[in-house]
Amino acid sequence: MRIAIDAMGGDYAPDEIIAGAIESFEKLDKDDKIILLGPEALVKDKVGSKNLKKYGSVLEIVDAPEVIGMDESPIEAIRQKKHSSISLMARLSADGLADAVISAGNTGACVAACQLRMRNIEGVNRPGIAVVFPTFEGPVTMCDVGANISCKPINYYQYAVMASMYSKHVLGIASPRVGLMSIGEEENKGSDVIKKARELLKSDKNLNYIGNIEGRDIFKGKCDVAVSDGFVGNVVLKLTEGLVDGLFKIIKHELMQESLLLAMKFKPVMMRLFQKYDYHEYGGAPLLGVNGTAVICHGSSKIRTIRNAVMMSKKFHGQKINEKIREYLATTTVRGTDE
Amino acid sequence: MRIAIDAMGGDYAPDEIIAGAIESFEKLDKDDKIILLGPEALVKDKVGSKNLKKYGSVLEIVDAPEVIGMDESPIEAIRQKKHSSISLMARLSADGLADAVISAGNTGACVAACQLRMRNIEGVNRPGIAVVFPTFEGPVTMCDVGANISCKPINYYQYAVMASMYSKHVLGIASPRVGLMSIGEEENKGSDVIKKARELLKSDKNLNYIGNIEGRDIFKGKCDVAVSDGFVGNVVLKLTEGLVDGLFKIIKHELMQESLLLAMKFKPVMMRLFQKYDYHEYGGAPLLGVNGTAVICHGSSKIRTIRNAVMMSKKFHGQKINEKIREYLATTTVRGTDE
Repeated sequence: MRIAIDAMGGDYAPDEIIAGAIESFEKLDKDDKIILLGPEALVKDKVGSKNLKKYGSVLEIVDAPEVIGMDESPIEAIRQKKHSSISLMARLSADGLADAVISAGNTGACVAACQLRMRNIEGVNRPGIAVVFPTFEGPVTMCDVGANISCKPINYYQYAVMASMYSKHVLGIASPRVGLMSIGEEENKGSDVIKKARELLKSDKNLNYIGNIEGRDIFKGKCDVAVSDGFVGNVVLKLTEGLVDGLFKIIKHELMQESLLLAMKFKPVMMRLFQKYDYHEYGGAPLLGVNGTAVICHGSSKIRTIRNAVMMSKKFHGQKINEKIREYLATTTVRGTDE
Repeated sequence: MRIAIDAMGGDYAPDEIIAGAIESFEKLDKDDKIILLGPEALVKDKVGSKNLKKYGSVLEIVDAPEVIGMDESPIEAIRQKKHSSISLMARLSADGLADAVISAGNTGACVAACQLRMRNIEGVNRPGIAVVFPTFEGPVTMCDVGANISCKPINYYQYAVMASMYSKHVLGIASPRVGLMSIGEEENKGSDVIKKARELLKSDKNLNYIGNIEGRDIFKGKCDVAVSDGFVGNVVLKLTEGLVDGLFKIIKHELMQESLLLAMKFKPVMMRLFQKYDYHEYGGAPLLGVNGTAVICHGSSKIRTIRNAVMMSKKFHGQKINEKIREYLATTTVRGTDE
């Protein structure tokens, strides 16, 4: 398997990204290869002559002289910077030269490049980013968290199908319970588009659809898959990050007021918690619905994130998730318009 | 001041609600009165003969034989149950017989009853529920969290104005920084309606509008007021509840694995945290934009919540928030259509 990694994406690029890529070799199979994209001289320098020699046969560097910044307008950047690491990465996949692509760079640009170059899986109207929340009750896959901010009913349905496939075949949940994000459990709650999405979800008996869920249910073990539009999903994702940070800050403050010793004793517990429930653990978020394996990593990705993203992309690819999505959508009778 | 309280609303009604109302008298002024609404015999029984005697001159009971359940469809319930505590409560305010109304009952029914009976403040297109998040960096007022799930641009603008008034005059924040909930800081991020709302917000130089905010910013001290539609706001509110619960569960579990003694020592810290940052502390959420003081409490309200809601309603009323909103909207040049 050939895994292309954008060496220039993310707040800690290129150092942490490249280090993560190199560390991945420990767990990769013999015939796996990693392709690093970025300005060639810079990437070579960061990889170092020792590693270049050691991994010469399994590590390739593709020169991508342009870099798309984290705050650039995605569509324009993709149009203008055809030799950026993100653009070329998507192209490698489209041309059959990479089996998976991974980037911690500008999310919008990644989505745009993948959609433009790799195209959608047959039957998929719009791709969606799926994020896995590690909760006390088990992993919850939420889709979409930012690829598509104004959804049609069919998009919600397809996100449910795709995220279920992911939950089942990558996370190992036999029959993922699907909840539709709304503002009340009752059938009549939610906007018109949510109500229509609900009808589509209900009509497919092959989905384990459990009904509306509310914000609080994500962390209560009520569902394994949470479906939403990209706006709501993105708010959920970022709120979760901010709230967890804020809460630990508050706890630390309060513990230090109580006793410094108690605060010190709490620290290893907190570190363990961070490790267990940290999003870095899941590596990255798959862009579900494109023809290929695309993993979008958090902007603050470090070595561990990239290493985990590589392993995740292997599982995604190995489990043939895209083929399963294609087959499912070919046989379902649920149709919608996406005008 | 006459404060009408729905004795039948909430998971712990009528016991905790009535007890909270009675306890409020400790902090009320001499000329304040409380009106309890509910089936007369039941309410009298719960208040008890001792209290009936003690507070005879300042406690009134209004017979409301019907009760609206937490899961009833709001509009239908309000139409059919004209003698419910919620309907009569709103009517008391509309008829000038109560200066504030408080309910922990069916939120949708409360909003519907208040809108129907009390009408909107002149210049307000749609009321919004404002919730205060107690954060490490100070209280953040979010509006709307569930009254209006599909907003027009003008609604966002008015939520910003009304929540700013609340933040300034009730919470004491001199110049509240207003953020518009979106999925990225950049100007071009968000849906079309968000972009149009942004233009309205920007055009009013009297607002301290700071731009788009993301989910993570609410708990990071970036803004004092967060503006969103009722769908997104409701997801934020409920997610916060669920995540805080879930996180404390995880911490407890992890601490107990580490050492039982450590878990025990952590308990008082956690209890203090809960008290400080608990939503019960703020009593309830004002329904901003209706002609009157309406406070909607959480379904799980207990004695403390109701007591705090009473004090909050006094402050809201005393600060003449509604007059300030009316004056502000009469002079602003920002207009929108709400067709």
